[in-house]
Amino acid sequence: MTNLPSEPLFTGPGLNRADALRADETALRELANSAAARQLKWQEDLPELARDGRLSWDIPSNPELFLGFDGEAPRFSAIEPVAAEARTAFPLMAILHAEDAPLFAAALSLSRWHGRHGFCASCGHSTEIVRGGWSRRCPSCTAEHFPRVDPVVIMLVEHDERLLLGRQPHYPPGRYSALAGFVEVGENIEAAVARELFEEAGIRARNIRYVASQPWPFPSSLMLGCHAEAENDELTIDRAELDDARWFTREEVAAALAENSEGPFQPPPKAAIARTLLERWLAA
Amino acid sequence: MTNLPSEPLFTGPGLNRADALRADETALRELANSAAARQLKWQEDLPELARDGRLSWDIPSNPELFLGFDGEAPRFSAIEPVAAEARTAFPLMAILHAEDAPLFAAALSLSRWHGRHGFCASCGHSTEIVRGGWSRRCPSCTAEHFPRVDPVVIMLVEHDERLLLGRQPHYPPGRYSALAGFVEVGENIEAAVARELFEEAGIRARNIRYVASQPWPFPSSLMLGCHAEAENDELTIDRAELDDARWFTREEVAAALAENSEGPFQPPPKAAIARTLLERWLAA
Repeated sequence: MTNLPSEPLFTGPGLNRADALRADETALRELANSAAARQLKWQEDLPELARDGRLSWDIPSNPELFLGFDGEAPRFSAIEPVAAEARTAFPLMAILHAEDAPLFAAALSLSRWHGRHGFCASCGHSTEIVRGGWSRRCPSCTAEHFPRVDPVVIMLVEHDERLLLGRQPHYPPGRYSALAGFVEVGENIEAAVARELFEEAGIRARNIRYVASQPWPFPSSLMLGCHAEAENDELTIDRAELDDARWFTREEVAAALAENSEGPFQPPPKAAIARTLLERWLAA
Repeated sequence: MTNLPSEPLFTGPGLNRADALRADETALRELANSAAARQLKWQEDLPELARDGRLSWDIPSNPELFLGFDGEAPRFSAIEPVAAEARTAFPLMAILHAEDAPLFAAALSLSRWHGRHGFCASCGHSTEIVRGGWSRRCPSCTAEHFPRVDPVVIMLVEHDERLLLGRQPHYPPGRYSALAGFVEVGENIEAAVARELFEEAGIRARNIRYVASQPWPFPSSLMLGCHAEAENDELTIDRAELDDARWFTREEVAAALAENSEGPFQPPPKAAIARTLLERWLAA
């Protein structure tokens, strides 16, 4: 056992994606028919987990997505009608084995993207699955469309040894977490952090630094975890975005994160990078 | 004058985007009709620059995109038929004023996104501009579609005081630059760096760290600049992705970046974050 904060869920190498094979339809068909091939099992709209938190696998029946190789064994998935939201998936994420987590995230994001992107955004024609499910191609205008990955900044901002945390309207009672927002065109990470903190809380930020990142498959965010310092502690809260935002002392954050305790607020779940950011801040 | 490496182009705060106003169509119409309102001028398919490298502005005639406020003055753009590639835009980027660069990038990415996303990816119906041009909505299925921002990792990898740089097939003669690739679903920054280095060059990476980021409007990448160490220096080059990749000493990189010299390779242009990464590595 160690006291070091853990890496965020869904990080790590995952499968060998063997992306060079994706364009080779013949090779993919042969792989799907090979004895070692397996197809991901789903339960309702999430990948199914065994009791030990590992993903579950079957003989391929509809291998639409080529996920990569587990050692020598090719791994596939069907495209499932995914509608899962993070809050319904948290119980599963709590037992998901860390080694399978990147694959869980990839299968979920990829399947969901196909479900919502059956038509060409460029001309409106229906599109076809290509590259082992890592792209869709329009047979009419030939445009190729790749799965979205949407970068989101999520940040702890500190002033005088206290952290700013906020409540989004959909949070369960008592939950406070790091502020966050999508990176827009024409912004880098640091500009997005500064803009979001000013928009949502009226805070001018400085010394913005990247801490860690995490893919978040609801539906396909790339969470960019950052730390910043606030130039002041007066809050102007955007009530359209946040129910509340407050400064918390180190003692309050520590109490909230302690196991089996009634802390001053409910922290974000362990699967979320906001939790990792809080753990690392406490450990620093 | 300072010898410190500069920040990448397109970074910095840019305009106040006033995103809370985007949903208020009446307010946006009034702003567009106000005396202080201006609309971005374009020349061919790039924003037009004055001699001093600043953006050029006109009275609004077709204010489809609300870019934000320059002080109290609202700024708009029409949606232009953009097809510019980075290589044709490098001369303009070389004189673009740093303060206007984030706006240049936002206008370019946003305009291009509209040009390629006139139809609903979910149902195929044509979509409508909403939120001052920061989104499109399908009147048939009500799906809302937001502009893409595609995260890309770009990395210097070091072994024994030498850097690995590569040549993509479309580079001008002699150019070597940092390896790069799109972040995929189910990956964080560090996983994408490790995968790309292994796929493109056969390199196992460790101690991967984020250095700086940059929006890159060709069409809408978020460049995530990283540094890594290579566990070995034997290369297995993916010739489908790279014409060549080589290790360069500190002296070779310094000679390539020196002004008015014939270095051992042509470095990436100053507008590219790869150049910033090289400058910072030399300065470290």
